[in-house]
Amino acid sequence: FPLAVPAPAPGLGRGRARRGTVAVRAEAGTGINPAIRKEEAKVVDTVLAGELSKPLTPYCRCWRSGTFPLCDGSHVKHNKATGDNVGPLLVKK
Amino acid sequence: FPLAVPAPAPGLGRGRARRGTVAVRAEAGTGINPAIRKEEAKVVDTVLAGELSKPLTPYCRCWRSGTFPLCDGSHVKHNKATGDNVGPLLVKK
Repeated sequence: FPLAVPAPAPGLGRGRARRGTVAVRAEAGTGINPAIRKEEAKVVDTVLAGELSKPLTPYCRCWRSGTFPLCDGSHVKHNKATGDNVGPLLVKK
Repeated sequence: FPLAVPAPAPGLGRGRARRGTVAVRAEAGTGINPAIRKEEAKVVDTVLAGELSKPLTPYCRCWRSGTFPLCDGSHVKHNKATGDNVGPLLVKK
């Protein structure tokens, strides 16, 4: 499985580190979805704005939610363990 | 920056590999956002369903889009380079 992918440059991501924290280098060359719907070639979900049941519905963007595509707060644990800063997309009715 | 994170078990993610492809182990312990708004503690975006301009608006979930939070197709390149299977969230008016 020869990946002709240039090794990610060591060091910080292009963004600045938050004051007082160390920017953990996110592996640009690594997958970000460990286990969600791996049998699908590409995981795409559709939200029908007209069928939203709650005033505000959070959708997962960290690929760790147990209720994917909906957010279940898993990004908090992910961010804490990795120094990342990902959060959900909120769709407001 | 001592990360008290157990090393991710080597081998496959919990999902099955797609037939005919090799499942690339996604680093469960690594960040997934290399460079988007790293000065923010948590990147959260809100979509007002009533203000959607197009019938269908794709939102990025791969953290590689140049037009984040909107999708610009960067997931195609990411998936190809890493064997991942991430795709956008489509919000339908």
